[in-house]
Amino acid sequence: MDLMDEIKKRSVHVDKGIGEMLPIEHPEELYRASRYLPDAGGKRLRPAVLMLATEAVGGDPMSVVPAAVALELVHNFTLVHDDIMDNDDVRRGMPAVHVKWGSAGAILAGDTLYSRAFEIISSMEKDPESILKCVALLSKTCTEICEGQWMDVDFETQETVTEEEYLEMVEKKTSVLYGAAAKVGALLGGASDEVADALYEFGRLVGISFQIQDDVIDMVTPEEILGKVRGSDLIEGKRTLIAIHALNHGVELDIFGKGEAVTPEQIDEAVAILEKSGSIGYAQELSASYLEEGKKMLDILEDSEAKDTLLAVADYMVTRNY
Amino acid sequence: MDLMDEIKKRSVHVDKGIGEMLPIEHPEELYRASRYLPDAGGKRLRPAVLMLATEAVGGDPMSVVPAAVALELVHNFTLVHDDIMDNDDVRRGMPAVHVKWGSAGAILAGDTLYSRAFEIISSMEKDPESILKCVALLSKTCTEICEGQWMDVDFETQETVTEEEYLEMVEKKTSVLYGAAAKVGALLGGASDEVADALYEFGRLVGISFQIQDDVIDMVTPEEILGKVRGSDLIEGKRTLIAIHALNHGVELDIFGKGEAVTPEQIDEAVAILEKSGSIGYAQELSASYLEEGKKMLDILEDSEAKDTLLAVADYMVTRNY
Repeated sequence: MDLMDEIKKRSVHVDKGIGEMLPIEHPEELYRASRYLPDAGGKRLRPAVLMLATEAVGGDPMSVVPAAVALELVHNFTLVHDDIMDNDDVRRGMPAVHVKWGSAGAILAGDTLYSRAFEIISSMEKDPESILKCVALLSKTCTEICEGQWMDVDFETQETVTEEEYLEMVEKKTSVLYGAAAKVGALLGGASDEVADALYEFGRLVGISFQIQDDVIDMVTPEEILGKVRGSDLIEGKRTLIAIHALNHGVELDIFGKGEAVTPEQIDEAVAILEKSGSIGYAQELSASYLEEGKKMLDILEDSEAKDTLLAVADYMVTRNY
Repeated sequence: MDLMDEIKKRSVHVDKGIGEMLPIEHPEELYRASRYLPDAGGKRLRPAVLMLATEAVGGDPMSVVPAAVALELVHNFTLVHDDIMDNDDVRRGMPAVHVKWGSAGAILAGDTLYSRAFEIISSMEKDPESILKCVALLSKTCTEICEGQWMDVDFETQETVTEEEYLEMVEKKTSVLYGAAAKVGALLGGASDEVADALYEFGRLVGISFQIQDDVIDMVTPEEILGKVRGSDLIEGKRTLIAIHALNHGVELDIFGKGEAVTPEQIDEAVAILEKSGSIGYAQELSASYLEEGKKMLDILEDSEAKDTLLAVADYMVTRNY
């Protein structure tokens, strides 16, 4: 199995679905602003997880394309609004939506992605009870994402951040949407609540693993692969799991939160200190244990190609190095 | 019937519902920011329309309180985001959400109101098919509100705005939510699609009438009742129906878009010109005809106290003078 081919096989339908289900309508510039980020690509991992979950419980993945599109739109909505809040001006190598259309334009583009996602999912031709469960789950997930983003913004001015708080933030900001993807796919594929809940846990746990690994990647990946300054989280003073572990263990990091005037040698030195203190290793181990726990959740499924692919997606999410 | 008593009888349940269905949870400050505007009051006209529609089709109004709360939260979500976009720093006589919590806080508070509204409505104990219709309608309505707000922001830099464009903007920005309120109430009250659609039209038409009247009120109401500078729309150069009519008829308005340095005498003079040109009268007549058309939609209902109250709410919305 070539995993990228497997993901691509599904994402072509999602790409096509985005064009059909979020057409450029009047007022056209609003829809151009809304389509800008979804059209810029991305791997469509969440839609792939959703469609694979449907297939893995014996459903027809093509029948859930609208739900996969809705999920991708929700993901893009969070990116558009987060970039305004975090003043991040570049996304997917392009100017962010708020750079091109201003804050007002980006707020409205995000709101439109959000409501269109719920329009799409609530108009699906599936049994009303399953769809309603998906709407309830997706809206709850969106509330949790807001909570996670609020915590993340708060961390910047909070004196201390505990590991527990960090994990809660990561769970809400990132992992619940993976959980929702897997569960929505299962529900619309006709799975029992027990199976659907196990798939939620799969997505949630793998999502946490993925985010912790993201912090590790920032430290250990060569810049030419990373595409940005290595150790940027450290320099910005971001409370990653690695930083929290180090601070808790009295590790002194001169460059933490120091901003731009940091040399590559200083970053190498800091990374060496964090390797020695066990902070990087700790994050790697915790990420690996969430991954294993998550994958175990799929034991509830019968063996199938889709199940194998889901497991491979989980491995890929965590072992990718950029 | 004392209309204010009738509205109050219903709004107490909505107020209580907001406290129960949007409790202050962790992270508390996010929920405080989200609750700030709903807790500041407002007449709860939309929830009242929703509950009255349920009653007028023979349903139990108490069974739709969650839907009424959801609708009020959606309304508040639009206010929170609009105030950021329009740089409006005061709302309901208090500092706007973005003034108290910053733009990032207000974006998230709005998003939370939005997703919580869908959580509440999708978790109602009603038959799934009706709830799903309501979710589909409410999400479509939110998309239209985004379209209307985009048009409104665009008008500021657009050289000419036609009456047709103005009416489309008003319909989307304001009136579809009244339409949705009435239709959701009808659907959850067990009405047929035909009756539910008629109630949608009632809300939509009365909503347009209400918004046109809002422009008139800005001109003709004494400042001590208005609570703000009379003619502020004119001074700001806002494309109201009155201004569009006047511009289309070659009426010269020195103070249009002139900003703050305008005297009360100049405003009196401008209003006199607009009376003479028939621009104010034109808006009043159009508003009245939308009101009548809207009220006629209720002919489909059997006579009842709830129907009379709905008609009285419609009259009140348009004949209020502040």
